[in-house]
Amino acid sequence: MTELAELADQLDAADPLAHVRDRFLLPEGVIYLDGNSLGPLPAAVPPVLEDVVHRQWGTDLIRSWNDNDWWESPLRVGDAVGALIGAAPGQVVAGDSTSVQLFTALSAACDLRPDRSLLVTDPEHFPTDRYLADSVARLHGREVRRVAPADLPDFLASHGDRVAAISYSPVDFRTGELHDMAALTSAAHEVGALAVWDLCHAAGAMPVHLDDLGVDFAVGCGYKFLSGGPGAPAFLYAAARHHDSWRTPLHGWTGHAEPFGLAADYVPAPGIARARIGTPPILSLLALEAALSAFDGVDLAQVRAKSLSLTGFFLRCAEDLLAPEGFEPITPTNPDIRASQVSLRHPHAYGLIQALATQGVIADMRAPDVLRFGVNALYTSHQDVLAATTHLHRTITTSDYDPTPNRPGAVT
Amino acid sequence: MTELAELADQLDAADPLAHVRDRFLLPEGVIYLDGNSLGPLPAAVPPVLEDVVHRQWGTDLIRSWNDNDWWESPLRVGDAVGALIGAAPGQVVAGDSTSVQLFTALSAACDLRPDRSLLVTDPEHFPTDRYLADSVARLHGREVRRVAPADLPDFLASHGDRVAAISYSPVDFRTGELHDMAALTSAAHEVGALAVWDLCHAAGAMPVHLDDLGVDFAVGCGYKFLSGGPGAPAFLYAAARHHDSWRTPLHGWTGHAEPFGLAADYVPAPGIARARIGTPPILSLLALEAALSAFDGVDLAQVRAKSLSLTGFFLRCAEDLLAPEGFEPITPTNPDIRASQVSLRHPHAYGLIQALATQGVIADMRAPDVLRFGVNALYTSHQDVLAATTHLHRTITTSDYDPTPNRPGAVT
Repeated sequence: MTELAELADQLDAADPLAHVRDRFLLPEGVIYLDGNSLGPLPAAVPPVLEDVVHRQWGTDLIRSWNDNDWWESPLRVGDAVGALIGAAPGQVVAGDSTSVQLFTALSAACDLRPDRSLLVTDPEHFPTDRYLADSVARLHGREVRRVAPADLPDFLASHGDRVAAISYSPVDFRTGELHDMAALTSAAHEVGALAVWDLCHAAGAMPVHLDDLGVDFAVGCGYKFLSGGPGAPAFLYAAARHHDSWRTPLHGWTGHAEPFGLAADYVPAPGIARARIGTPPILSLLALEAALSAFDGVDLAQVRAKSLSLTGFFLRCAEDLLAPEGFEPITPTNPDIRASQVSLRHPHAYGLIQALATQGVIADMRAPDVLRFGVNALYTSHQDVLAATTHLHRTITTSDYDPTPNRPGAVT
Repeated sequence: MTELAELADQLDAADPLAHVRDRFLLPEGVIYLDGNSLGPLPAAVPPVLEDVVHRQWGTDLIRSWNDNDWWESPLRVGDAVGALIGAAPGQVVAGDSTSVQLFTALSAACDLRPDRSLLVTDPEHFPTDRYLADSVARLHGREVRRVAPADLPDFLASHGDRVAAISYSPVDFRTGELHDMAALTSAAHEVGALAVWDLCHAAGAMPVHLDDLGVDFAVGCGYKFLSGGPGAPAFLYAAARHHDSWRTPLHGWTGHAEPFGLAADYVPAPGIARARIGTPPILSLLALEAALSAFDGVDLAQVRAKSLSLTGFFLRCAEDLLAPEGFEPITPTNPDIRASQVSLRHPHAYGLIQALATQGVIADMRAPDVLRFGVNALYTSHQDVLAATTHLHRTITTSDYDPTPNRPGAVT
């Protein structure tokens, strides 16, 4: 047994979360390192969906809005997500897509800072975040400035009094670098700006402390580390201190103070409920709720510790096996600023990811040349990491892949 | 056998759509007249969802975006809906909620008519339509005028050159009265305004001719007459002639011309695809797609004919059994202006609907005093109608219900 294999065995044997892997229905013969794009199927989901479809929809029909509490599900699931991101109950709603929730968050931030002309976001932010910032800025008559996180303190020092809000992610989705949520949130608040965070690559992957950090708004998706299913509903956090004054741009009937009153004019519901928009997609929403039960009794500090062990071990394997073959790790070795993925740069990223898939190792790539491997402490083992890097080493050394030019990859 | 029972038998015996009822899993002992709020479970849905969950998500995982064509599903399902509303392929996208789609449609209409200050909508429109019009008007710097359909021609004659768009539904969701889509669309176009239609209560219930009428934008939900499941994704129609010039307010990454290119700036996809926003809720979306197969081989002219037969028979039963007991039908007797529901006014609507439910007759109410009975030609029989009205007659004559003051009812 090689040294790496021994190490993997030791680390897996000491893993306090090893039993959680049974909460996922992972296919035989597959090493799944793309849960940061689409989480795998939690075992709790199929029986819940069976019940939702046959009993709740099929038998109870319309009565399920009350009898099976469909009506409250966006708030109930919101609170369940909130428990994973440091949000006390009553501040998170689940529903719609991350894009729609971002639109709401950024629009609300503009309304809360009517006299400030700038929205500031990350030039390396995930595309939808950049596009939505542009869209909100147009409709609210603001300007977008794209400022790298490292440059943000300087920018705020000179332009801070004009900034309505900053919009960042704690995780660079390409490199897996962590940005300092606490420092950037404080920097925004010091100049009177609001802080909006996109938690797509953080929620469920590490502890997040929204209330403690005083974050104003946050959004995220349900289908990455929360494993809520393809296109699972997103979520929106709005800090309670804004609940008396914030304004949402999408005045749907379910966010009305009296949704069944059929009133002529919109009167927002109190609290987070005003961020409800239209009728929520119940099948997808209750699948997400079932998926979240995979976190029952799981300590996010343990999740973080294991995630760092997995990515640290991945970087070790990469150093031994892959760096000599031309792979350049671009994920920080410093665990303080490393999220739950490892990214490697290689000019044949596309062909290599395709070749790995034929061997049952599922990862993804991001244009133009990044191979991306996501680990999830709830089900990834160190042996998985060793197997993936070993397959990649064999693929590159045997040239058993298609060295076509890189092409855009799969869904984020 | 009574005369009404004989008539019901005759009408059901001659029903060319009787066999379609088997495409729905209707619970035993229930007469379901609330499909205009939530359609029942189509038999095609459970096996498809089983496949989507276990094979597509559970086994194929992230690869399903390509291998099981999840990526194209919003457009594919959009085209399937389009076939039911008179839209040639490439003009309808499925996803999000009706509220979000309305926001997109009304915002796009404002952008296409930048110099016109008014959005005109129906004072009796469904609440979300009114609230979204207000919301879009605020963000685009326009004013909303609420004008009843009957008054619209006069209003347009005097203010038409200031109107950017009109936003109406062909069906009054309370009374079931049909408004004249052709006439109102033409009236809007004559003054250079755009026509936006909400088809929630029309799609799947009757033929709709969006292309032929020259409608500009239309939206609708998937969970009423399309029976796509609770909160099923909505749809948006944008006429092809606007595809070179329209602008959507929610610039999500899936609507980008190169969604995997991770470009810094938003470049809209050609055609209807730019109305895609975020990652769609695949479970709910593919359930809707399966549900639409209930329309396979079904002629919407037959659907309309049977729907009118059902509502006509309902009004006949109401006249004989219910009018003498104080129920006032508010649905038009003229079939030309009658949609696929019958509404009765009674001061004890709430208690009566509750009492009916205990007898297995599911209908709903709308504040303050409307009992609403939706029929769906795909599964409702004339015997269902007779049984429902007979139950209601028995309930009122035996006073076997709670005559509490009316309260807001269930979900639309």
